[in-house]
Order: sequence, then structure tokens, then C-alpha cells
Amino acid sequence: MNGAESLVRTFLDAGVTVCFANPGTSEMHFVAALDAHPDMRCVLCLFEGGTTGAADGYFRMTRDPAATLLHLAPGFGNAFANAHNAAKAGSGMVNVVGDHATYHQRYESPLKSDAPGVSRTVSDWTRVSGDAASVATDGAAAVQAARGLNGQVATLILPANTAWDNADVPAATPAPAPLRQADDAAIAVAADALRQPGAALMIGGGHMSEGLLHLGGQIAQATGCRLMGPYFTPRIRRGAGTARIDRLAYHIDQNTQILAGTDTLVLCGAARPVGFFAYPGKPSLPEPPGCRVIELCDARMDYAASLQSLARAVGVDPETAPPVEVLDIPDLPTGKLDAEKVGAVVAHLMPENAIMVDEGVTSSAPVQAATRTARPHDWLHTMGGAIGNCLPMAVGAAVACPERKVIAQTGDGSAMYTIQSLWTMAREQLDVTVIVFANRGYQILWGELSNVGAGQSGRNAAAMFDIANPELDFVALALGHGVPGVRAETAEDFATALRRGLETPGPFLIEAVI
Amino acid sequence: MNGAESLVRTFLDAGVTVCFANPGTSEMHFVAALDAHPDMRCVLCLFEGGTTGAADGYFRMTRDPAATLLHLAPGFGNAFANAHNAAKAGSGMVNVVGDHATYHQRYESPLKSDAPGVSRTVSDWTRVSGDAASVATDGAAAVQAARGLNGQVATLILPANTAWDNADVPAATPAPAPLRQADDAAIAVAADALRQPGAALMIGGGHMSEGLLHLGGQIAQATGCRLMGPYFTPRIRRGAGTARIDRLAYHIDQNTQILAGTDTLVLCGAARPVGFFAYPGKPSLPEPPGCRVIELCDARMDYAASLQSLARAVGVDPETAPPVEVLDIPDLPTGKLDAEKVGAVVAHLMPENAIMVDEGVTSSAPVQAATRTARPHDWLHTMGGAIGNCLPMAVGAAVACPERKVIAQTGDGSAMYTIQSLWTMAREQLDVTVIVFANRGYQILWGELSNVGAGQSGRNAAAMFDIANPELDFVALALGHGVPGVRAETAEDFATALRRGLETPGPFLIEAVI
Repeated sequence: MNGAESLVRTFLDAGVTVCFANPGTSEMHFVAALDAHPDMRCVLCLFEGGTTGAADGYFRMTRDPAATLLHLAPGFGNAFANAHNAAKAGSGMVNVVGDHATYHQRYESPLKSDAPGVSRTVSDWTRVSGDAASVATDGAAAVQAARGLNGQVATLILPANTAWDNADVPAATPAPAPLRQADDAAIAVAADALRQPGAALMIGGGHMSEGLLHLGGQIAQATGCRLMGPYFTPRIRRGAGTARIDRLAYHIDQNTQILAGTDTLVLCGAARPVGFFAYPGKPSLPEPPGCRVIELCDARMDYAASLQSLARAVGVDPETAPPVEVLDIPDLPTGKLDAEKVGAVVAHLMPENAIMVDEGVTSSAPVQAATRTARPHDWLHTMGGAIGNCLPMAVGAAVACPERKVIAQTGDGSAMYTIQSLWTMAREQLDVTVIVFANRGYQILWGELSNVGAGQSGRNAAAMFDIANPELDFVALALGHGVPGVRAETAEDFATALRRGLETPGPFLIEAVI
Repeated sequence: MNGAESLVRTFLDAGVTVCFANPGTSEMHFVAALDAHPDMRCVLCLFEGGTTGAADGYFRMTRDPAATLLHLAPGFGNAFANAHNAAKAGSGMVNVVGDHATYHQRYESPLKSDAPGVSRTVSDWTRVSGDAASVATDGAAAVQAARGLNGQVATLILPANTAWDNADVPAATPAPAPLRQADDAAIAVAADALRQPGAALMIGGGHMSEGLLHLGGQIAQATGCRLMGPYFTPRIRRGAGTARIDRLAYHIDQNTQILAGTDTLVLCGAARPVGFFAYPGKPSLPEPPGCRVIELCDARMDYAASLQSLARAVGVDPETAPPVEVLDIPDLPTGKLDAEKVGAVVAHLMPENAIMVDEGVTSSAPVQAATRTARPHDWLHTMGGAIGNCLPMAVGAAVACPERKVIAQTGDGSAMYTIQSLWTMAREQLDVTVIVFANRGYQILWGELSNVGAGQSGRNAAAMFDIANPELDFVALALGHGVPGVRAETAEDFATALRRGLETPGPFLIEAVI
């Protein structure tokens, strides 16, 4: 067998069975090897941002990596933004990047490029295979790395001759190193701190499951502390029956208010709260001056086990029930559509166990608010702030969970970064209902322009913030990609459209004009 | 004034008057400064690949840089592939990348990212401004760098506080260092070599003008050598009246044949020919074994002046006329459309002085062949092999040359990487006729799969190479972006469509089903 074949068999043996691919010439032997193994599911993305974004969504739902297939440094460049988002989400993936044959790299060919260099600026793990005999063990190491520390972006660069030269056998993939847990002394300090007045426990991590939230609620009940969570989460269980939790908001000003009066903040799985951006004259950190911040355990450690230890240390009675959200579904609204009405309709109609993928930017906060007490569901945020994550992530979530409804909420501006993912939804007949919040611009930037005190705005700001003249027609864009869609300008139209999307298998797009 | 204002004024003073922008929060003060200076033309691209690709096209037509505006490392990542293409074309541009405020970079915010790192893997010049007082001189140095060595990709990273803190005055932009020329001794060696049997002169450079080709033709006439040129050129004058030149082809096998019998190859402005990719059992270099390669002058030197010196050294009589292409326009074909018929129709209808932007991959070679003797025109290739360059480059060329017709030829696969550029064409009412070669797949990869000897192909190869199930509807995609379009399945329909595109101002798209 050649190096490429040894890699595909190594992946399959390791349980990596999905490959989100955008191949080129340098990956031909890998394609041939995939072709010989139809048990590997190859999902074509028409743009590389679709591959890493899909692998991100896939990992969030399965907690296990998919592979991507990319073409030299420019292919990795196109995949960069969603690799960044995935790294920030702690989503594991194995990027296979074809490169020129080792002996060809000395020449100035058009695609000569620094794949290892660009990978190292964003991947947690990067390796270049030196020869075909190493490809299998390198591949196994990549899978191990992708599974390590709760999930990492691992990138394996294959010079073309390492794929076509003779190799030996597939390699066995070692288990990742055990995760660290918070030690007993740190647990004792945190347990004591949580019993003081003004204490808050902020939980987080790659998967805020119902059980994790329940445990957090029990600790809050046992200690009297406040239970908190981040605003952006890779995956959080929400809706009726989940433990109530105070979550942060997007903006530093809001978070300064939310954290006012907090004397001690214990972090378990959550990162230290920090402003999304800096603003002139505003702090980078939202907690009150003098607040004691105890970083018990981060998202790369075993945060679930650490929270269990903390629960034992504070004497949680496993039989106690923390306060939970009670099912409360809004009525269907009427009249001209706006983001609040989108939220009410979604909360009214969404089925139990839906996967909500959120990159609504300025528009999805009302949907999040309206669905707090809706039927139980999972919510996925873009974690790295690089827009263009939503549609690819919906692809990956739908590939991972074909039995569940995926609802993708995206701004019109953000949809346009990776709009090609609609075609992959059509090709794979993924059960995704896409809601595009069509407010005809980068609304968040108008807000930010005033936030930074940048003064009056005129022609060039409008030229850069408004997506008008012409307006985008998302129904036509969907159709062009093979996805049916409708435009909704009233709450009634939107409810009809959403019903249709949810009741029909396969992808469907709604342009929600707000 | 603040740092951002000092930068905008520095750019305007330097004659940088176009900015292809995709801004975010970290660039807000720069946006405000642009807003105060409507003499800077801000062109919004809905995806960052559009910005660097447009700056590439703009430079090729003006030989002077535009600015781009990008958002942190992920924004640069999205711009990476076309920055790579531009660097390979020797196209100068100034990328302004906003980053977090210096004091905010210590925190783990979602968009914390390595903008300098990713820039350095592809830019010719990267600098991070340290404070607001340095921004103007840093900006001037960036423009100087972008103009240096016939054109470079210069990237200036602005931490947000360097934009909003107080600065001093704009800076004057120094002229770039003078270009090197081939020295007299090297010229003498080359002149002597060209007079030997089996000698070829390969000319190249960022702009293969009519004059450059004429001079090459005169040298060939005076010495008896063969005049050659690369296949991929940033910009070459073609058609009736231009000196005849033998150009290389895409594939190593073709080029091995084309160069057979060449004993000496003198390179002036052209890079050493090398295989686009390596293939098992095939050479990386196409020249015959033992061929003497004289690298007289590369594209980063003054190749035009060096060619002049060479002409003098070989005793060119300025009054002599080399053989030129004679106007020969094919008749309009009929019947089912194919790439050859597209070529004939284009050659028949294209107006004098059209700008032909070519990323037709497997499909545009027949168009190139058919237009060799057409009305004089400029031809622009994707230089770095990263597909997704065509539509953005057409944007930049049309912004640079509003009085000329731009014809953009793109494969269906390649169009999908930066399809959002259609919207910018509509917004700016750019006079671009887009021809999409709709062969419903990555045809080049089917060829490459057989080239690398990768064997039989089956389900997974088809899943990754065919763009079908569903077919893309480019007319709907165009409409969604605000661009009118039609589908053509016959030569007659295609001719009608192309006439309409060329006769109507503004963008127009033709889906050429081949």
C-alpha cells in the first residue's frame, strides 16, 4: 500500500469516518485511497471554510473528530477562519493538507507556499510527514492530538510523494493522555470561596450538558453562590427542565453590570470573562475591581469531573433539585417581522431536541431570550468571533445528528462568507432550516462605530456597513445552490415558512426581512 | 488627529486612493477616518478573498497599489489565497489589518489571533505599528514596500489603540529603491548565447506590454533565437499587431515537448519554467537535460530596461519589425456549445482593448487559442494557482479601467470560492461580463487523478470531483447578488448572451453549459 492508503486505513481504524473535503491535485492519491474505502464518508465543500466549519459542528455534536482535506497553504488559508473558530471552541479535527512533493519544493512553482507556517499560526498541533513510511504513525498522532485536551485542531501536512510512495501498514491510534483535574487543595479553596457572600460559580466547557448544568445548580443551592455561564458556548443545553443559570452578555458594558457586586468568581470550565474587543476608556475585564478570580479548571481539563469534586466538597445532596426552567412557550405573533417576533415564532415551533446554530450577531439575542423556556434543545455559538461559521457548522451538526432538526440562524452579512455551504446541504440532503436575518447590513458595525466614539458617519461608512444597492436576494441564492427557500416579511409568513422548513426533510432557507 | 486619520492622509498623499474593504470592529477608527475623506474610494467586498483579489487586478492594470482593509487574523486568513496569488503575480498592495488594542492582547478573547504570524507566511513585507505616533511612517513604509521590486504584498497591522490614540501628522512616502538591472557582463553572456543554435529567449514580468513583446521579437530576429513566454502571465498584450511568441503550456508533458531541442534558455523577466505540480516518474523541470539556463533578470528587477540593454548588445535595429499576429477572426459557430465554440464566439465579438481575466482552468485554453489573432487585448491569469482569483480580479481591473470592457472567464468550481464578488460588481456597476464554464465539476481533478496514476475511480472520487446533485444554477446565483444573467447551451445562445453582456454597461453573467 502507499502512504495515502495507510493514512485512510489508520483513520478508519481509529474511528474517523467522515471527511469534509475540498481536494486539489496534491491530494490525488489520498482521494484514490478514499475512493477505495467507501466506509469513509466524503462530504464535498465548495469552499474550504466549509470544511473546517463543518468539522467544528461535527465535533461539537459527537465529541469526536472528523477529517478535512485541503490543498496547500492557500487551501488552508481559506479554511483558516473556521479553524480559528474551532480552536476557540475546543473542537477537535484532523486537517490533512496536501503539499508539493518534497523534491519539488525547491522550485518556484505557482503553488509553492508555506503550509506549515500558516497552520502553526492557528492549529494546536502541526506536523509535516517526512516520508511515506511515517504517514500512518503521523496520522495516528494527529487523531490522538485531535482527541487530546478535550479537542484540538490537528493539521497533518502530506508532501505528495509521501502519499504515493510505498508505505507499510496502518498504525494504531493511541488514546489521548488523561485529562488533568483540579486538585484537592484547589477544590477546597474554591468550595470555601463559594460559601462567602458575593460569590459566583461560572461553569463552562465544550459541552454544557443538562447534567453539568444540574450539578452547577446543586452547587449554587448548597453554597448560596450565584450560578453563571459565559455568553458564547460551544454547546449548551437549554430550555425546559435545564437548571437556571445567569449568563453573560455580548458587550463589556453589559457584563460589567451583570458582574457588579461579585466579590469572588470561581471558574470551572469557563474562561476568564474578557471584553470581546477593547474600547477607548473602557476596561478589558468586566469583573469589579478587587474581585477575586479563582481559575479552578479550564476547558482543556476534565471540567465535568472537577465540578463533581467541587459538588462533593461543598456537600451537595445528589437528591436535591436546583431551580429549573419551566416550559413557557410564547404565542405566535402577528404583523411586520422583527427579531423579537422571529424569536417568538422559533420558540413556538421548534421541536424538542433541535440543534440551534447561532451566528445571528445582532439579531439572534432575542431568539435566545425567547427560547430560554422552550422545548429542550442544544445551542451552538461561533466561538472565535470570525463570522462565516454558521452554515458550515450546521452542515457538520446535521451530518453528525441526522435524526435531529438543525436550525441555523445567521446574519445576512455573516451568511455571505460561506454561503457555498448551502450546496453541501442540498447535496447531502441535510435537515437544516436556515434563517437569514436580512437587515441589509453589518448592523453590529454601526453599533461599534458609535461604541468606539468614532464620531459622525457619512458616505464611506455607509459604503462599508450597508449591504444594499443592490439588496441580496437570499431566496435566489438558495435556489442557485439547490436549496428551496422563501422570503418572510410578516410574522405570519415567517411562521408558515418555519413550519414548512421544519416539517419537510432536507434543507430550507428563510430570508427573514427585519 | 488620531493614528487612523494620519494613515488615511498618508495614503492619499501617496496617491493610494482606492480601498477594497471588509472591515470589523477593530478597524472602526480607520473607517471613521476614511469616512472623513471621500476622496478615498471604498469598495465593499462581502468576503475578504474579494479584497486582495481586487487589489491584485487593480495593480495589474495601474501598476500602483490599492489598499485593503481586513479584520484580525481570521480576516487575513480569508484574504490569504488571493494574497498568495497577488504575491506570485508581483502585484503590490497595502493590506491594513486591524488587531486588538496592544493592552487587550494579553487576554484570551475570542478574536485573539496571530495576525503578524499569518501575514508573514505570505506577505513580502509585514509590520505591526507599535503606537499611534508611528502609524503614519509605518503606512508610508508600507506603500513604499508595495511599490518596491515591481510590486509587493505589504501588510500593516494596526492594534486598535494605535488608530484611536493621538498622532502627529501624515508622513511623506519615499520612492521605492531603484530596480536592479542585469549588468553588462551578464548582458554580454546572454547576447552571445542567443546567437548560438538551439537558443531561446524567454521574456516575462508583471506587464508584458506590446513594446516588450516587440523588443523580444526584434532580439529574436537579430539573433536567430526563438522568442518564448510563460503560460501564466500577470498581464500580457495579445491579438493582432503583437509580436508572435511561443508560449509554454500548462502541463509538464506539454512543456517538455515545447522545450525539446532547446540548448540554451535565456530568462529575462520570466521565472525558470517548472512543473505546476510534481508527478510520479516525471521531472520537475521541463527543459531538456543539459540545457543551459541563463537567469539574466527576474521579474523583481527592471526587466524592461534589461531587455533594452540586451537589444542593444545584439545590435537590434530599432526600425526592424518582428513578425506579428495578423487579425484573423473566426466565424460565429453554431450548435451545441463547447469550450472551442465559446472561444470562437469570444474571438468574434470581443471589442478592442478588452481585459480578459482568465481562471477558466480546463476550459479557457481554447479561448486563449481562438483569441491569439483577435482584436488587441490584455490577458490576466491567476498566478498563484489558488482558484477564486478571477471574479475579485475582474472587480479590481474594472475599478482601475472603467472605460474598458472586462471579460471574466471562470470555471464553475473556481467561481464558487469568491462568488460574492458578483455583488461588488453590481454595487459598483462595474462593466464586467462574466463567463462561467459550467462543466459541473472539477474537471481538472479528473485529469490529475489519471496523471498521478492513482488508478480506478469510484464513488468517493465522484463525490469530491463532480459538482452535481444538485447542479449549481449560476443565473440564480447572479440574480441573488444583483447581477443579471442568462444560461447558454448553444453557440447561438452564447453569442446572443455575449453581445448583450458587451453592449450593456454594468455586470452581466453567462452560464456557458459545456
